[in-house]
Amino acid sequence: MNSALPPDRLLLGPGPSPTAPSVLLALARPTLGHLDPWLLARMDEIRAGLREVFRAPRGTALALSSTGTSGIELVVHHLVERGDRVLVGVSGYFGARLAEIARRAGADVVAVEGPWGRALDPDALRKAAGGKPCKLVALVHGETSTGVLQDPRPYRALADELGALLVLDCVTTLGTAELEFDAWGIDAAWSCSQKGLACVSGLAPVCFSERALAAIKARKQPVQSFYLDLALLLEYWGGARAYHHTASSNLLVALHEALRLVLEEGLPARWKRHADNARVLWSGAAERGLELLVPEAERLPALSTLKVPRGVDDAKVRKTLLERYDVEIGGGLGPLKGQVWRIGLMGHGSSERNARLALGALALAMAEAKG
Amino acid sequence: MNSALPPDRLLLGPGPSPTAPSVLLALARPTLGHLDPWLLARMDEIRAGLREVFRAPRGTALALSSTGTSGIELVVHHLVERGDRVLVGVSGYFGARLAEIARRAGADVVAVEGPWGRALDPDALRKAAGGKPCKLVALVHGETSTGVLQDPRPYRALADELGALLVLDCVTTLGTAELEFDAWGIDAAWSCSQKGLACVSGLAPVCFSERALAAIKARKQPVQSFYLDLALLLEYWGGARAYHHTASSNLLVALHEALRLVLEEGLPARWKRHADNARVLWSGAAERGLELLVPEAERLPALSTLKVPRGVDDAKVRKTLLERYDVEIGGGLGPLKGQVWRIGLMGHGSSERNARLALGALALAMAEAKG
Repeated sequence: MNSALPPDRLLLGPGPSPTAPSVLLALARPTLGHLDPWLLARMDEIRAGLREVFRAPRGTALALSSTGTSGIELVVHHLVERGDRVLVGVSGYFGARLAEIARRAGADVVAVEGPWGRALDPDALRKAAGGKPCKLVALVHGETSTGVLQDPRPYRALADELGALLVLDCVTTLGTAELEFDAWGIDAAWSCSQKGLACVSGLAPVCFSERALAAIKARKQPVQSFYLDLALLLEYWGGARAYHHTASSNLLVALHEALRLVLEEGLPARWKRHADNARVLWSGAAERGLELLVPEAERLPALSTLKVPRGVDDAKVRKTLLERYDVEIGGGLGPLKGQVWRIGLMGHGSSERNARLALGALALAMAEAKG
Repeated sequence: MNSALPPDRLLLGPGPSPTAPSVLLALARPTLGHLDPWLLARMDEIRAGLREVFRAPRGTALALSSTGTSGIELVVHHLVERGDRVLVGVSGYFGARLAEIARRAGADVVAVEGPWGRALDPDALRKAAGGKPCKLVALVHGETSTGVLQDPRPYRALADELGALLVLDCVTTLGTAELEFDAWGIDAAWSCSQKGLACVSGLAPVCFSERALAAIKARKQPVQSFYLDLALLLEYWGGARAYHHTASSNLLVALHEALRLVLEEGLPARWKRHADNARVLWSGAAERGLELLVPEAERLPALSTLKVPRGVDDAKVRKTLLERYDVEIGGGLGPLKGQVWRIGLMGHGSSERNARLALGALALAMAEAKG
């Protein structure tokens, strides 16, 4: 095996975002045991920091030792039992993933589809539910495949009508867009470490309301997974501090530093920074004649989808960007494959400089790919 | 949140072991996208490296983006369907965990218990199986709770008699003790990144025989987990390179460097180093009148269990070691709580110096805890 060093990419895709320099340094501190009292104290601070970032002072938060997708799985497999009715909004790849995971949990899934690139209409979900009780209303806050921000606020009333819990995929919104877990009445949410928080991937923050924890306690069947068993995880993250798995101190110390940076900046300032730099990207794109997929009012600040102009070879442009300029942007997923570029300005990577560099490099690569 | 730096512990417990310095540096390299061609090429090398370390040239190996326990879960949930009979050897905490995970997978578990601190007798398992067909014979190669090495070789014949696959927990043995996946007829094995490989925790190497992959293909029911769905993982680690989850380039680049170090040293040399340094620990313990739990022929080279002498306060000694000498050793689990100390000399941490330091620091802490 060789010992070549990785290239130094500018990460302007759908995530991971560029890891903040002090987070990389924290990551490389010597390893600690997973039950070291120093680490356990930092884990308490991580839980408090996550409650702040989710805006969930009354919530219960922790970080799973696995990536964001495991957060969907933990939440859904704990809140759903075989045969439960689950209403899922699907207008992108991650809504579809959420529905798939609910199906695997044995749910009777009502997937309400909407066009990729638009927010869903709460009335479409209300109509599809048909007034029949549901266990969950499940939504994607920031649909990373389309660049759409879905406002979850109108869905709380719908969830109440159906006797349902409201759960939210915050993988791309945590730390990048307004999110009020408690005030909006969210019952469970999950995210990742490698986007808005500017840490590396490998940890999945999750957050639960008291109502969600009560629903988990009232389950008739235990969950199948041992690795993603919330009761066991809570005994490690609190309570008896009982060994459950060997959490990585390096990842946790890095997440601790990442949360410190987020809270030092302050959430409203961070949300504004993401919104401001997204607008730089959007207006620059318009000036260059590049169209955006999503109407402005429904756009995610952290991730923008630009339509690939007719006649331009998507893959060739991205290859040129990566190989010649060390710039990573994302391609389209599913039906948007070859149709859009996904440009992320997230976390440490959300800057006016990166917004301008993304457009400049894209213009260069388009010219070169043509030639 | 504060920005205090972690203490610099000498990790001589049951794991994590001390991360090799060049692995920490690799970990802190700038982050890459999970589909970056440079990373994908390194992932191919990781797979080849894992096949070498497992001694499985005909095997299929990859690393899960989660810790060692998720490796048990992935293997068991793929090879077992509801109602399948599974024979598990249980003579420690991790054998019991393996049985528990098989039960959660819906298996009809025949748990054959043996004394904690001794290897199991293949004939006891043969007798318990009663000649009835089984889906799996499941063993722990290195029982981290007791310090026992279980030789899996005699179990291949038993598995054949029962029409079973033979699966092995190699969490503490991979890279520290003789292991011949192909030659011994192992069908599936799992391990972790933070012990014998001297990487940080967060990844779980797994390896499958062709026969095991065929058994997975022949399942009647799909597996429940999306996150730990082997077919989807294989499409990301090979095949179409399809996005499944955001693997952490930092962890993978670190694992790549860790495997490079292991293969540079060579497995037989590494196994010998672990055995030699364990013997330094064992003879030093004997000289100081400290008894070992396990008969010499059944001892794990990477982890030794020393009996806590009568009248000595286990917890106080470990607290002194940690707070005054920055040395971590492990306490006993389950019925061995308060009864043994677990001293690990693993990976980068297996050295004559550390064997002597462990005993020296333990003597100091015992004297201080008494006073």
